Amino acid sequence: MRRVAIIGVGVTKFGKHDRTSAELFAEAAADAIHDADVSPAAIQALYYGNVTGGEGERQLHMGPLAATLLGLPMIPTTRFENACATSHAAFRHAMMEVASGVSDVVLVGGAERVLNIPTDAATEYFAYCSDASMEQTVGLTFPGVFALIARAHAYVADPLKLFDCCPFTDGGAALVLAAEEVARKRPRAVWALASQAATDTMFMHEKRDLSRVMATERAAAAAYRQAGKTPADVDVVELHDCFTIAEIVATEGLGFFEPGAGGVAAEKGWTSLGGKIPVNPSGGLKAKGHPIGATGAAQIAEIVTQLRGEAGPRQVEGARTGLTHTLGGNTATVLVSLFGRD
Amino acid sequence: MRRVAIIGVGVTKFGKHDRTSAELFAEAAADAIHDADVSPAAIQALYYGNVTGGEGERQLHMGPLAATLLGLPMIPTTRFENACATSHAAFRHAMMEVASGVSDVVLVGGAERVLNIPTDAATEYFAYCSDASMEQTVGLTFPGVFALIARAHAYVADPLKLFDCCPFTDGGAALVLAAEEVARKRPRAVWALASQAATDTMFMHEKRDLSRVMATERAAAAAYRQAGKTPADVDVVELHDCFTIAEIVATEGLGFFEPGAGGVAAEKGWTSLGGKIPVNPSGGLKAKGHPIGATGAAQIAEIVTQLRGEAGPRQVEGARTGLTHTLGGNTATVLVSLFGRD
Repeated sequence: MRRVAIIGVGVTKFGKHDRTSAELFAEAAADAIHDADVSPAAIQALYYGNVTGGEGERQLHMGPLAATLLGLPMIPTTRFENACATSHAAFRHAMMEVASGVSDVVLVGGAERVLNIPTDAATEYFAYCSDASMEQTVGLTFPGVFALIARAHAYVADPLKLFDCCPFTDGGAALVLAAEEVARKRPRAVWALASQAATDTMFMHEKRDLSRVMATERAAAAAYRQAGKTPADVDVVELHDCFTIAEIVATEGLGFFEPGAGGVAAEKGWTSLGGKIPVNPSGGLKAKGHPIGATGAAQIAEIVTQLRGEAGPRQVEGARTGLTHTLGGNTATVLVSLFGRD
Repeated sequence: MRRVAIIGVGVTKFGKHDRTSAELFAEAAADAIHDADVSPAAIQALYYGNVTGGEGERQLHMGPLAATLLGLPMIPTTRFENACATSHAAFRHAMMEVASGVSDVVLVGGAERVLNIPTDAATEYFAYCSDASMEQTVGLTFPGVFALIARAHAYVADPLKLFDCCPFTDGGAALVLAAEEVARKRPRAVWALASQAATDTMFMHEKRDLSRVMATERAAAAAYRQAGKTPADVDVVELHDCFTIAEIVATEGLGFFEPGAGGVAAEKGWTSLGGKIPVNPSGGLKAKGHPIGATGAAQIAEIVTQLRGEAGPRQVEGARTGLTHTLGGNTATVLVSLFGRD
């Protein structure tokens, strides 16, 4: 297996857009290709992530559409969907394509558009990422899922308020991956050291301990093993804080703090810029928004920017090793990847 | 890269079912695992295909659901969607995971359920696989797409009638893939010799020649090259005949007949059982049904059954090399794979 690097990144503004998700992706992808300084003709495949395009934009089969809009209508494309972990899953599979020698240069990313539809419709479509047979039917939406987790973790009353929740957001993100032979000549290349996925039962009532996210713990353990790293080696983290409690259980599940200690650690500033382990210098999902199909790729774009030393006022000084963590649905899918500079 | 084999197949009855698509997949997968004679604990990943589950069943994020229903809630899962080529795309990516050494035994397949919703809704959701910005808005559904192709190919009047079209269908299909080390001891193993994808422009008005499917021609050329085979080596074919014209242009695009000669070849019986190149001994999409998320995997299951010599009255005698061809949406996605026995 060959080493794989990210040689280009592009992220649109997150917010409200009057363009389709495929158009948002094309904007991010054009930026990523420009940043990579490769010819568009060098791109050999597109790994495209989107969640609710069928429901909200009447658009499935988005891989060829995104490729067509990019002016690359003939490259093989596949659409990936793993709830909010969608484009992180696409990244993991794209990494296999490059590592295994099938392709040398691959484009990966995703986009989401939800602010073109009413909020109650967006809430409903997002809830499709939980189980339709038992959980949606009793009204379980994602604020409810994470409120259950928050209650199990620490709180004693209905815990989540509006500012505990990330906003509905439009946006796109893209990455250019390249094999070692291509990346070696590029001083800004950042190596993908590991990418691992884990799944947990789809049903909330089957989860053994709601105060922990077992899929985070298993994906993280596998990723540290693959990269030959430990939590102590990590300098900067972008993790999935769709709700405040999600950040707390993630910092615990990733091994930065003991179970139960994540909330206090955040309060003490250990996860702030300049703290022991800076978490979400980008602002995270809660502060910068969460276009669900784009989020995983956007997290990776931020870590690449940090490891290049190009993050400006939010730069984590001297960052050499970074981690991204993306959670899908009712904590049933988690991806964890590790990145580094030579 | 290691050789990859299919060691187990399972396909549900195609027709109307009163179960969810994830349940249909679980049935097919249990059969495939039994057929493979492996322990469920040996399965290291699930590649799951589904197209319209969000629209028709209010269910996204189906990988963990299918894994949970199968009793394997902890294996990494990813959902793939490439219109009607969905589970063939999942197969191609799963093959990379096994060939590259990431996993030894992987489950791949898909399912679809559409007969739980009205036909006009199903027609609308299927149309989401064409372009939403220009084509759906003027009323282009898939019978229309293939009528355009039929007109360009040969006919002189509105050509497609009811029995030219495949029916809406529920169903599931699953395959167990294994690395050479695992498959070598199994005499019924069938080798995956090649799997290639090609894309064409999403927009009908940009296609250069509507009477040909360029993505079929490119995917086929790449698959023959990867396998070191030619059309003359192929003994049996399962191809994507969602409409009668789709079969004709596919037999031409796959290199069995010259452009324009596919219709006459079918009329002469050259594609029948006992003919020069038997096409769709399973009945094909038109006769056995087309549960779009399951179709690609079901085609592969049929070719594996044929190459094992276990196809009973529809057996192609002495078949050693088989081909599957799956088309997605408005001819924008095509996958072609080749299979063989030692």
